[in-house]
Amino acid sequence: MQDQLKSANILKFKDGQSFPVEPDLLAVEEPLEIRIGYGPVSKREQKSLSVTMRTPGHDHELALGFLFTEGIIQSFNDIEGIRHCEEVGKEETGNIIRIELKPFIRLDIGTLERHFYTTSSCGVCGKSSLEAISISCSVINSKLKIQNEHLISAPDKLRSAQKVFTYTGGIHATGLFNGDGELIMLREDVGRHNAFDKLVGACLMKDLLPLDTYFILVSGRVSFELVQKAVRSGVPILAAIGAPSTLAMELVERFEQTLIGFLKPTTYNVYNASKRIVF
Amino acid sequence: MQDQLKSANILKFKDGQSFPVEPDLLAVEEPLEIRIGYGPVSKREQKSLSVTMRTPGHDHELALGFLFTEGIIQSFNDIEGIRHCEEVGKEETGNIIRIELKPFIRLDIGTLERHFYTTSSCGVCGKSSLEAISISCSVINSKLKIQNEHLISAPDKLRSAQKVFTYTGGIHATGLFNGDGELIMLREDVGRHNAFDKLVGACLMKDLLPLDTYFILVSGRVSFELVQKAVRSGVPILAAIGAPSTLAMELVERFEQTLIGFLKPTTYNVYNASKRIVF
Repeated sequence: MQDQLKSANILKFKDGQSFPVEPDLLAVEEPLEIRIGYGPVSKREQKSLSVTMRTPGHDHELALGFLFTEGIIQSFNDIEGIRHCEEVGKEETGNIIRIELKPFIRLDIGTLERHFYTTSSCGVCGKSSLEAISISCSVINSKLKIQNEHLISAPDKLRSAQKVFTYTGGIHATGLFNGDGELIMLREDVGRHNAFDKLVGACLMKDLLPLDTYFILVSGRVSFELVQKAVRSGVPILAAIGAPSTLAMELVERFEQTLIGFLKPTTYNVYNASKRIVF
Repeated sequence: MQDQLKSANILKFKDGQSFPVEPDLLAVEEPLEIRIGYGPVSKREQKSLSVTMRTPGHDHELALGFLFTEGIIQSFNDIEGIRHCEEVGKEETGNIIRIELKPFIRLDIGTLERHFYTTSSCGVCGKSSLEAISISCSVINSKLKIQNEHLISAPDKLRSAQKVFTYTGGIHATGLFNGDGELIMLREDVGRHNAFDKLVGACLMKDLLPLDTYFILVSGRVSFELVQKAVRSGVPILAAIGAPSTLAMELVERFEQTLIGFLKPTTYNVYNASKRIVF
């Protein structure tokens, strides 16, 4: 379980008091690229199938299960071997896995390419994507400070305004709050990233960007991708009902964004830049 | 909000009794393909950037927000227009959106292709992916029946066994249970799909597939992709702590898989094939 947990120094707010907690544990999030080797022995080919942000551990199972549930293999028998690649430099070791298919396995690469689809963000490797986004994003230097009470009252405001959630119980939300803790805008979607993108798109239309006098509350967990979107929007404070991942934490540290997790009416954790909260 | 909700007939179990509820409301999940038109007026080009499973509504904002947070546009000013495409047949109308960039916007398509990455499952359109997976999956004809008490006791068993969750509070789980309600295997990951793939990969290694004498419990919501993976693994009963989406429901109906949502110690909803539960 060692690879799956990482400790972090955080500030905990509880019953009107803030105090440091060390160490708090975060779930590790790292990219895994899945490659396959296929074709006859005389003419082996390689294809990169997928990059997923995953918690390290059971990588062989993950790659196998992915190939099976996507219909690329029919049984364990179709596999000649699985190994982590170490060819690409020390930093990425362990985050690329290659499955060798038996030579007789036929692949319809055309179907495969139609079948898989592209999704948002990040490069092949967490490290390189951190580099990539630092090009298009700047360190957040907003002087915004928010009162503790505006923060802890936000989850109730978000939930009350969530119309689709009220009916279905099954949808994510992203809410934009101003410095006085007023909910300015809310977007809902089955996808966490989509709810966030909808909100940013609306802000773009209204010429509100960068969001340096607002804070954002998301209903779920905070992954790498969500912080990436938040940094890009220039919002100084990102709060979540759920937990952040390790890569999310790495990113807020680099961009000096305030990150709050497990936000509840009486308690929350501050993962970075607590300077923007007035206790 | 009309597009975002869809009603369904379900069976509710509460306090030892089961009774039909009509209609229950589900959050709508449908694919959205985002395309861009770019380049000088004399030589316009088109590129498909992303397909995301989203809740319809605010599609313009979603596409705009996506382009902005991914660094493709810098302001609303970079956009010439946005429209839904209707060129591809009635069924997909509304699920493809095209953003025209102003002619002066330079795109580095190479960077774009490295930046976006492929992810699991599904084709461009929900309908066509339903067709696609019906090729590699069969209707589930398992005769498995499980006792109600094995079902309602499963969430506690899953949670007690979740080591990483215990420490972090921020990770998804997929658990495999046998017909006697015993937890056979558990996998955790920051990604819902990864936890599922890890479990299926482990089952593949142990030659347990198809999983026709087991049921699976997932810690989160049930999306289209998760049902797709579950059907492929042949598991007759899929249960979730969270809510299913409309596309998830469509898929379990087609493959006659039992689907349970909002599973708690005293209450749950049966969305399909209640025949496999002994009340």
